[in-house]
Amino acid sequence: MFVESYRKELWFEASRRRELINITSHIDQCLKESNIKEGLILINAMHITASVFINDDESGLHSDFEKWLEKLAPEKPYSQYRHNGFEDNADAHLKRTIMGREVVVAVTGGKLDLGPWEQVFYGEFDGMRKKRVLVKIIGE
Amino acid sequence: MFVESYRKELWFEASRRRELINITSHIDQCLKESNIKEGLILINAMHITASVFINDDESGLHSDFEKWLEKLAPEKPYSQYRHNGFEDNADAHLKRTIMGREVVVAVTGGKLDLGPWEQVFYGEFDGMRKKRVLVKIIGE
Amino acid sequence: MFVESYRKELWFEASRRRELINITSHIDQCLKESNIKEGLILINAMHITASVFINDDESGLHSDFEKWLEKLAPEKPYSQYRHNGFEDNADAHLKRTIMGREVVVAVTGGKLDLGPWEQVFYGEFDGMRKKRVLVKIIGE
Repeated sequence: MFVESYRKELWFEASRRRELINITSHIDQCLKESNIKEGLILINAMHITASVFINDDESGLHSDFEKWLEKLAPEKPYSQYRHNGFEDNADAHLKRTIMGREVVVAVTGGKLDLGPWEQVFYGEFDGMRKKRVLVKIIGE
Repeated sequence: MFVESYRKELWFEASRRRELINITSHIDQCLKESNIKEGLILINAMHITASVFINDDESGLHSDFEKWLEKLAPEKPYSQYRHNGFEDNADAHLKRTIMGREVVVAVTGGKLDLGPWEQVFYGEFDGMRKKRVLVKIIGE
Repeated sequence: MFVESYRKELWFEASRRRELINITSHIDQCLKESNIKEGLILINAMHITASVFINDDESGLHSDFEKWLEKLAPEKPYSQYRHNGFEDNADAHLKRTIMGREVVVAVTGGKLDLGPWEQVFYGEFDGMRKKRVLVKIIGE
């Protein structure tokens, strides 16, 4: 078959500064629309204070992530970061670095080829405004 | 050429809770089986307490990784993590987040296009049971 | 269209041990040379003490990255790392693990499909010698 491609932007608006949103069903929907059966799907945050990552949809773990990221890259005091002259989101750049910008997932038989507990998340670290995730699929 | 794809699951069973296993020769073998000459290969852990990453095959460095990950995301006390109600592996989710879920490697002339010291590892952080790595190749 | 591929090595020599170099224009140039319009581009460090990552081109943030990486994985004392028998760069392996080996970016309409502030960086953590970044594009 010839190579085919698909592109979509998904918009999310977190109601808090930090939030983890399960976007797996949105990605499933994109894959259906694409009609691509075999290939690779790239899902990336288009903003540099947000993340797309894969892990478990378990609220205890999400609370552990919040506490852990605050330990490794604390939000406050804002003055500890040189980036925070006009901004207050330096910690969000660091937190997203830990969590990662993107995931690449295999597409097999027209489905996301995920392990049993793998779920795709949008990780917001500087929220309360609309931000985008890019979905790009190539294959056949 | 038309686009072609290849998929294989590789199974590993670490004999300890944490272990770094060099899987480069297994990936080479997949690439040979695929007969794909130019493209991209995705190698990802299918489990959310394990990692696939690229680094040096040097035992001193591996021991440094162990000590460092234990500093950044300690296994014990188990009670420090809310995920650890029925489980004891919250630290493994965090350690794998640092090490990464996946790598994407170029395929050039039918070979893994790796730098001089790049080796592909399966990083197990909650072992002593069989777990899977997914290999997906697309190209021509 | 048929699947097409492109490969190039880019060489960089940081004048200091650690340096973040904006390589976005080099990647743009590779994409133009490739003549690929829709697909995926992989950009990875070929060395295991360096990183390719995406973030903001803001000097305050870059100084925050330096301070933060030194906190999470300090260079000295060298003797704290077992890897540092013949080498002194164990910290560089750890820093690059935090920052990531590679990025995958969508190619859309012949352009890098980046968000408004996304810039591609080469992150050097053991510099003062020539090292390589691999650019591989597949698509049509």
